[in-house]
Amino acid sequence: MNYGIVLRVLGILLIIESSLMAPSLLISLYEGEHDFYPFLITIIITLIVGIILSRKKGKDNLISAKDGLAIVALGWLSISILGAMPLFLAKSTPTYIDAFFEIVSGFTTTGSSVIENVEILPKGILFWRSFTHWIGGMGILVFTIALLPALGVGGFQIYKAESPGPIAGKMAPRIKDTAKILYITYFSITILQVILLLFGKMSLFDALLHTFGTVGTGGFGIKAESVGYYKSSYIHIVIAVFMVLSGVSFSLYYSLYRKKIRDVIKNEELGLYLGIVISSTLFIAINLYMTNYGKISLSLRDSFFQVASIMTTTGYSTADFDLWPSFSKGILVLLMFIGASAGSTAGGIKVIRILVMFKLIKREILKIFHPRAIIPIRNDGRVLSNEVIAGIYSFIALYMVIFSLSTLLVTLEGVDLVTASTSVIATLSNIGPGLALVGPTRSFALYSGATKMLLSFLMLLGRLELFTIIALLAPKNWRREM
Amino acid sequence: MNYGIVLRVLGILLIIESSLMAPSLLISLYEGEHDFYPFLITIIITLIVGIILSRKKGKDNLISAKDGLAIVALGWLSISILGAMPLFLAKSTPTYIDAFFEIVSGFTTTGSSVIENVEILPKGILFWRSFTHWIGGMGILVFTIALLPALGVGGFQIYKAESPGPIAGKMAPRIKDTAKILYITYFSITILQVILLLFGKMSLFDALLHTFGTVGTGGFGIKAESVGYYKSSYIHIVIAVFMVLSGVSFSLYYSLYRKKIRDVIKNEELGLYLGIVISSTLFIAINLYMTNYGKISLSLRDSFFQVASIMTTTGYSTADFDLWPSFSKGILVLLMFIGASAGSTAGGIKVIRILVMFKLIKREILKIFHPRAIIPIRNDGRVLSNEVIAGIYSFIALYMVIFSLSTLLVTLEGVDLVTASTSVIATLSNIGPGLALVGPTRSFALYSGATKMLLSFLMLLGRLELFTIIALLAPKNWRREM
Repeated sequence: MNYGIVLRVLGILLIIESSLMAPSLLISLYEGEHDFYPFLITIIITLIVGIILSRKKGKDNLISAKDGLAIVALGWLSISILGAMPLFLAKSTPTYIDAFFEIVSGFTTTGSSVIENVEILPKGILFWRSFTHWIGGMGILVFTIALLPALGVGGFQIYKAESPGPIAGKMAPRIKDTAKILYITYFSITILQVILLLFGKMSLFDALLHTFGTVGTGGFGIKAESVGYYKSSYIHIVIAVFMVLSGVSFSLYYSLYRKKIRDVIKNEELGLYLGIVISSTLFIAINLYMTNYGKISLSLRDSFFQVASIMTTTGYSTADFDLWPSFSKGILVLLMFIGASAGSTAGGIKVIRILVMFKLIKREILKIFHPRAIIPIRNDGRVLSNEVIAGIYSFIALYMVIFSLSTLLVTLEGVDLVTASTSVIATLSNIGPGLALVGPTRSFALYSGATKMLLSFLMLLGRLELFTIIALLAPKNWRREM
Repeated sequence: MNYGIVLRVLGILLIIESSLMAPSLLISLYEGEHDFYPFLITIIITLIVGIILSRKKGKDNLISAKDGLAIVALGWLSISILGAMPLFLAKSTPTYIDAFFEIVSGFTTTGSSVIENVEILPKGILFWRSFTHWIGGMGILVFTIALLPALGVGGFQIYKAESPGPIAGKMAPRIKDTAKILYITYFSITILQVILLLFGKMSLFDALLHTFGTVGTGGFGIKAESVGYYKSSYIHIVIAVFMVLSGVSFSLYYSLYRKKIRDVIKNEELGLYLGIVISSTLFIAINLYMTNYGKISLSLRDSFFQVASIMTTTGYSTADFDLWPSFSKGILVLLMFIGASAGSTAGGIKVIRILVMFKLIKREILKIFHPRAIIPIRNDGRVLSNEVIAGIYSFIALYMVIFSLSTLLVTLEGVDLVTASTSVIATLSNIGPGLALVGPTRSFALYSGATKMLLSFLMLLGRLELFTIIALLAPKNWRREM
């Protein structure tokens, strides 16, 4: 392992983080609230640690695959540990573990909260919480790498580890250019949503924070009732539509920009993604309407918002869906596992893996009739290799194994199976709220420190798509095995 | 399709079924209860239909793969439809759908019941219910095939479709001889358990019926409290041990008989199966003990019984495990998915598939460190082909898809998610009881006819391992596709 280079990248990462806290410092200064010193102290400490680490020199400038994994895992860990400091110092959370949970939840774009009353938080803290969604959504390391052209060799490894999906597509030959395209798209969507929310008479502060939570598919609410606080259907629909847009693979926006409309229309993952959004919305709306929820228009609006929110793993709510009938809740739970598209800011298993899974099941059925046939599996016309297929299936299997075992650990808290299992999937898939005791009107404050650490770990596992973290934790003899 | 031969095999199957009802007829005659005429009428009808069908002649005596699938699916359907008749005629169930559910539950060795008070059933009916477990456990069609040496060509197809597990192992070159070995083993275990239960001062009738339910891993109770009715720890332990024994691949008993001890000791599936039984028993026992269930010996006894019962998908109970803490219930739910060994009478995904899944996950992690390595997956020393691996993963995936979608359908009944999901897994994995409203002290009587039909379908899907049935239901253009 090239420790020098690993530490150096971490140092640069922390310098960037300290500068990203500056807006919160200015807000706390302007508002004259008690979170000014917490931010000031954190910024100074983060900056000092960052500068010290960034002076380390490696044997050379090459990043191996193993170094890349270490940078990603340790990078996300360090920014969370330091990013949690303002919340702890400003006494927004009772313990450091709570502050850590909250900020991991921010960076991983989860949105699960341990803070029972968010409305009393100072504005600087509120801004930082939501801003971490926006930073974490696109991947802060990709940004760091883009600033470090000298590190180009291992850059793809890092980009791959931080980008969700089974096939990391480079849109441009150099990581730097790919990152640039991604960030331009990200900024454009962000600005557009803020403008549209301002049209809906939302304040600039609220518009910014909700946009961070939407575009990063994070979902931290800044009101007790989440988005339900705003009574305007216009605002509900703008946020819902932007959640859906943020769940689309960002590379498709680049295709649109380059006028490759055909690529977008024929994209199989996009088709299935939108198909699931539309059909789930209709099924839930009908179910709500039939169980006397209210007018069909209200049923449709709330159903669409919640489907968009859960499927894109954002987690905002406009209604307490924990009170909805089992059929509607069942669909939402399924969406929690599926998640949105690869290459978006969303979590979950991802639609592309589900798509390939269905193709493999179909092949198995065809094989009963044609036992000797060789049937290739294609996606968007390209044949998938056996390697990619094995990777996809193993990912889904590992997801279910982690889900099952973590649920067992959470039941040790004495909560019911629905609470335990949805706490796990809500964090592992980076969604936010679950059902029952962790439903949309509740928080994760009920859990012990140990369980909060477990759930924080699950958020990181989900955000970095399992294998990055699992590989680092694998028994040493596995690593040597061959 | 060779319709003639398909109908002829179905006819012979029904003739066999009518003779298998004879013991119940004799019991009802001896007891002088009102189920005598129901059995007499059913036997006559079944025999007549059987004789008519068995006279059909095919183009030739060859059974194609497609014919084999049709025979298995239609065979299980016909014996269930006719086997349900005595229950309906004797008014043991209010509707024919209930009677059908009950007998499908019997033949598929599920043990889910729609009868709220089994203790008032006439003895002939009680015998028939439990006897169907014993018949269905080993596979009635394998028996039929063994009697029809002329049909040897497609015999393996039928044997494969009816035997659980990803790799159908023939113990002898001819299906007839394999079937003979299986039946000798089956009879031996049965006789041994009956004798041991008689030693425990159980009546012969009760001993026979519990043995049918144990060896077939069925689990129909004949008392309201299931096996909990018997207060003797000896009886609990005998039944628990025989459940575990019935969850072992029957081919291993043949290896034992041939003194191939090494094959048994080194069998990886057996090792994992016993490992899961032991560790689950310990975890649940500790959890029960810590939550003031009672003495550690009582906690261990009840834990072992329930783990053995659920993992082997039998479904007997000695305690109301629905009242156990979430951690214990969570383990039981996991076991409901896993099931026992391939080549046993148990349902579920099967331990061998879980084992291969873990090996594939491990390979994926190793590949992060050695991206170019080619790492074969072995079981008991033999390398598994990509085809077998794809089949295993697709099976697990399809299992989860069927589980999820069926759960959604059941929630339309208005029940909670735990009731709906455990109703589905309890039937799909051929277990019997679930949790909450379908817990061990409840029945499936609460559901509508449509849901009972759905759950009956799931029992058949689970017993015949999905693809046999799915293939017959596949869209016609799939079958033609190539």
